Amino acid sequence: MALFGGIEAGGTKFVCAVGTGPDDIRAEIRFPTTADAQETLGRAVAFFQEQEARQGRLDALGVASFGPVDPDPRSPTFGYITTTPKPGWAHTDVVGFLRQAFRIPVAFDTDVNGAALGEWRWGAAQGLDTFVYLTIGTGIGGGGMVNGALMHGLMHPEMGHMRLCHDRERDPFPGICPYHGDCWEGLASGPALQARWGQPGDALPPDHPAWSLEAHYIAQGVVNIVCVLSPQRVILGGGVMAVPGLLSQVRREVQALLNDYIQRPALTEAVEAYVVKPGLGGRAGVLGAIALAEGAWRAAV
Amino acid sequence: MALFGGIEAGGTKFVCAVGTGPDDIRAEIRFPTTADAQETLGRAVAFFQEQEARQGRLDALGVASFGPVDPDPRSPTFGYITTTPKPGWAHTDVVGFLRQAFRIPVAFDTDVNGAALGEWRWGAAQGLDTFVYLTIGTGIGGGGMVNGALMHGLMHPEMGHMRLCHDRERDPFPGICPYHGDCWEGLASGPALQARWGQPGDALPPDHPAWSLEAHYIAQGVVNIVCVLSPQRVILGGGVMAVPGLLSQVRREVQALLNDYIQRPALTEAVEAYVVKPGLGGRAGVLGAIALAEGAWRAAV
Repeated sequence: MALFGGIEAGGTKFVCAVGTGPDDIRAEIRFPTTADAQETLGRAVAFFQEQEARQGRLDALGVASFGPVDPDPRSPTFGYITTTPKPGWAHTDVVGFLRQAFRIPVAFDTDVNGAALGEWRWGAAQGLDTFVYLTIGTGIGGGGMVNGALMHGLMHPEMGHMRLCHDRERDPFPGICPYHGDCWEGLASGPALQARWGQPGDALPPDHPAWSLEAHYIAQGVVNIVCVLSPQRVILGGGVMAVPGLLSQVRREVQALLNDYIQRPALTEAVEAYVVKPGLGGRAGVLGAIALAEGAWRAAV
Repeated sequence: MALFGGIEAGGTKFVCAVGTGPDDIRAEIRFPTTADAQETLGRAVAFFQEQEARQGRLDALGVASFGPVDPDPRSPTFGYITTTPKPGWAHTDVVGFLRQAFRIPVAFDTDVNGAALGEWRWGAAQGLDTFVYLTIGTGIGGGGMVNGALMHGLMHPEMGHMRLCHDRERDPFPGICPYHGDCWEGLASGPALQARWGQPGDALPPDHPAWSLEAHYIAQGVVNIVCVLSPQRVILGGGVMAVPGLLSQVRREVQALLNDYIQRPALTEAVEAYVVKPGLGGRAGVLGAIALAEGAWRAAV
């Protein structure tokens, strides 16, 4: 049986694991994403080398990475983290670094496409061919599958940067996105919550007006994704979504905004099965990286 | 060689054609979409029967239809126009009507997915696997391909109903969508232009402030589609886009809104090859219907 290594390469921390799926994670490690890319990647390599010594050779690696990235295998910069503002990480050849150390197939995609694949393989998207995985946290990002394959296109989705209706009378906060000001991420990410209210989201009580506004923005983004993509399900992950009651508010607001225009029971009746939590919880990312590795291995054998 | 019939079933008019592609349309007819669905579909059937008598048997039919429609072949209402507000057309079994008359494969999809397929087969989307076709006219609608297949998912996209940033100080017009008020279609369709300015779009001079506002809304919608889908190209069709200068304004505004966030030459340098007119012009719809028929025929043989 094949054995895989997965890296959830986040902008704050790396999570590396060895195993074959949610019921078979044999080792896991997490460490901070420092400003020294080579050093951070070197820690991942050291972990996998140590695991190979104990468990035998890995058959493939998967990386679900913060971005922007180049996920196009035909591109000369495939496997790079490209123009990220994160210090020390712009134009980093992640896949090249790992291939040099291991000489096995290395799959590489966005963190959210990785999580989406994990949810498709073992979580809340099993059996679907068109769905979206969103994370609402330090940033807002989205990935998913359309017609049974992960979304790439020109590059990869940047769902957090769509524009929403920003009612400046209700919410004069200008947004914090350095590129777009009040795009979705600029209005509704964790750091936007903190900047608007002067304290982090998890310090705001459940009845604080922050949450109805937050639910409104999250729902607007979800509605736009529903209109553009017609997903069969929308999975909402990320730290902000852990706030009690927020998911229910988002569902109500999605229905209110769509106003029964899309006549599908999933949206008119059973929205609690349509806008859902990740089936893998906070482990969607690293398990998605394992699923990416599995895919690269299947493609190679 | 196979011969196909195509129906562009619009909310205002039907266009029916017989042929195999843009250089081989052997007959064409157009007539109004009346409030009597059976009568309108009967005219299409009479046209194809007459053509079969002259040109020989058709091998397949394709229908690119106004909607909402059910394009899922596994559904009991496949081939229906479903909950349309158009009088006389709700819950109309279009495919059943045609199959009964001709007993040949009948392909059925949205008008915009049909046009997208036509553009992919013979127009501005040749060689792409992920792109969007939009029509800005009586309504706003979008379709396209992702990962090499037409977009369906839960139902089909309803891109015209996404929410945009509506600055009510600059534009106090409340929008005309009966479901959503100021969604994209509510703000920027042809009827919205007419309602806001008191005259139809083609009566407004090119320097009228209507057009910079219109370009702004169209660009916002395009930007949101770029963020959600990461298309390799965006094709803008429909009557409103025929206004001189509008397409260039939309391109400039798309670049301004994205603000170089997505570092791909298609968006930072060569936007005139990224946001484009339909290669088939106003014939994308009926040729798309022919392309749908061709697809059904290929799947059947």
